[in-house]
Amino acid sequence: MSLIVTGTIGIDTVYTPTGHGERILGGSCTYFAAAASFYGPVRMVAAVGGDFPPEFMATLGHFRNVDVAGLEVRKGSKTFAWGGKYRDDMNSRDTLFTELGVLAEAPPKVPASFADSRFVFLANTHPGVQAGMLGQLPRRALTVADTMDLWINVAKPELLALLKQVDGLVLNYDEAELLTGRKNPVTAGRQILGLGPRFVVIKKGEHGALLVHRDGLAALPAYPAEKVIDPTGAGDSFAGGMMGSLAAAGSAPGADAGSFDAIRRALVHGTVVASFNIEAFSLDRLRTLTRAELDARYNEYAAMVRV
Amino acid sequence: MSLIVTGTIGIDTVYTPTGHGERILGGSCTYFAAAASFYGPVRMVAAVGGDFPPEFMATLGHFRNVDVAGLEVRKGSKTFAWGGKYRDDMNSRDTLFTELGVLAEAPPKVPASFADSRFVFLANTHPGVQAGMLGQLPRRALTVADTMDLWINVAKPELLALLKQVDGLVLNYDEAELLTGRKNPVTAGRQILGLGPRFVVIKKGEHGALLVHRDGLAALPAYPAEKVIDPTGAGDSFAGGMMGSLAAAGSAPGADAGSFDAIRRALVHGTVVASFNIEAFSLDRLRTLTRAELDARYNEYAAMVRV
Repeated sequence: MSLIVTGTIGIDTVYTPTGHGERILGGSCTYFAAAASFYGPVRMVAAVGGDFPPEFMATLGHFRNVDVAGLEVRKGSKTFAWGGKYRDDMNSRDTLFTELGVLAEAPPKVPASFADSRFVFLANTHPGVQAGMLGQLPRRALTVADTMDLWINVAKPELLALLKQVDGLVLNYDEAELLTGRKNPVTAGRQILGLGPRFVVIKKGEHGALLVHRDGLAALPAYPAEKVIDPTGAGDSFAGGMMGSLAAAGSAPGADAGSFDAIRRALVHGTVVASFNIEAFSLDRLRTLTRAELDARYNEYAAMVRV
Repeated sequence: MSLIVTGTIGIDTVYTPTGHGERILGGSCTYFAAAASFYGPVRMVAAVGGDFPPEFMATLGHFRNVDVAGLEVRKGSKTFAWGGKYRDDMNSRDTLFTELGVLAEAPPKVPASFADSRFVFLANTHPGVQAGMLGQLPRRALTVADTMDLWINVAKPELLALLKQVDGLVLNYDEAELLTGRKNPVTAGRQILGLGPRFVVIKKGEHGALLVHRDGLAALPAYPAEKVIDPTGAGDSFAGGMMGSLAAAGSAPGADAGSFDAIRRALVHGTVVASFNIEAFSLDRLRTLTRAELDARYNEYAAMVRV
């Protein structure tokens, strides 16, 4: 079924303990769409400026399942740019600079051809903007939002309003604590369910993810990756694999796309595709990733966690 | 098959964010044996002082599978005592005091009736003492040791010598980094394999465990526990469940007790029994735990991680 994502496309400058990438293609929408495209078509709604390099457009074009009809190029504006530096453990990072560019302008519009989208992922941005997207997607069947500490701190009323309209929320471990004031992630997750969503996915980076669903709990380790070159986009590609596989599975008539079992299965796909993304800067690894490699690692992971 | 553990029996004073326990029964050997006893008999080699309370002896006696023939009571000595305070996240703790008592004396001896033990767990103590135990256990078939940052820092040569004599090593995430200088736990684990053991179990507390085995990798999430009263003994009860279930499975003729599949399966038992231990101070939860509760949570956990 039709999957749509709205979020950022950025020009990133990333320093890790082992290398750096300067002015490389990044952004939540980018990583999400590239990962989701392995499972089926994905529609992208985002904006970039006149400075967006043609080769980045070519990179997006490489992912044939990504529909860029909702990608607005604003000639007189600048593309969102972000710089960050990872600490030695690769688990935390410091922001070096943020140039909002088009993000400070009006959000991009959902094109008429995308209005019938059924699966919706609201990648991380101001919850007011996220809610605004929903009004343009009247046929949505499953809506999942990402958020971050910034919005919990500066836009909590808007975030709480958004939570009443989504089926699922994806956020980091410490953000779940920040949102609820509860240190135990299961307790925090349950409290978030009381705010509206049917399920919450708590991301723990290299420690995996926890699913707190109205109908059950699940825990998944990350793939034990030895090759970690750049963690940027791990969470977004995880969400892309999750939503992409959900949308693919949701094509079955009568299937409940948001059921506990469906989400649990989808998280495995998210885990596996994210484990490839971190093996290189930008989309460099996802660009060369084949379906056979993805399937092989899925099977390897399944064998690892088999009880 | 026969399982033996050597380690500490202590009188603990523990402060957690939600409560405290004063002069309660603790120690690595204690938690290990109580957990292992759910799977079969376990032999205990340890020493306590004349101050060891009779009610603690009764508590140990409650676990009918625990054989205390190797428990030395030294009338003129004092029992090891430890005090610690957990931080708000329950993942880290500060030591308030340590009174070595009998631990500063000669280590306890393996009684003649235990000399035929096949499965050996060397709970955390000086690696020289751990190695000394091995000389008294000539029929050992599978030997696993625990260690900690202290010994890596102050007794590294003895630890490296011990590693050449064990099949497996169990240690914490940050200790694996300290021992190898490698931040990636998979890389650190592989490096430890180069020091002798056939497998390494890297414990990550609430984030589960990683198995780096000569024949494969496995990752397990912790049971997503909402009731965490006292994390003390989580690692020891985890090891107890692991070794206890290994010893039970190893009774099958011709079985390779240290194979990748055997260890992977055993870690699930360790994960499940440890998840009960943290629900109360001391052995309070393991004392009331039933086989049916253990089996039910095992099945619940298996369903959670099923891919």
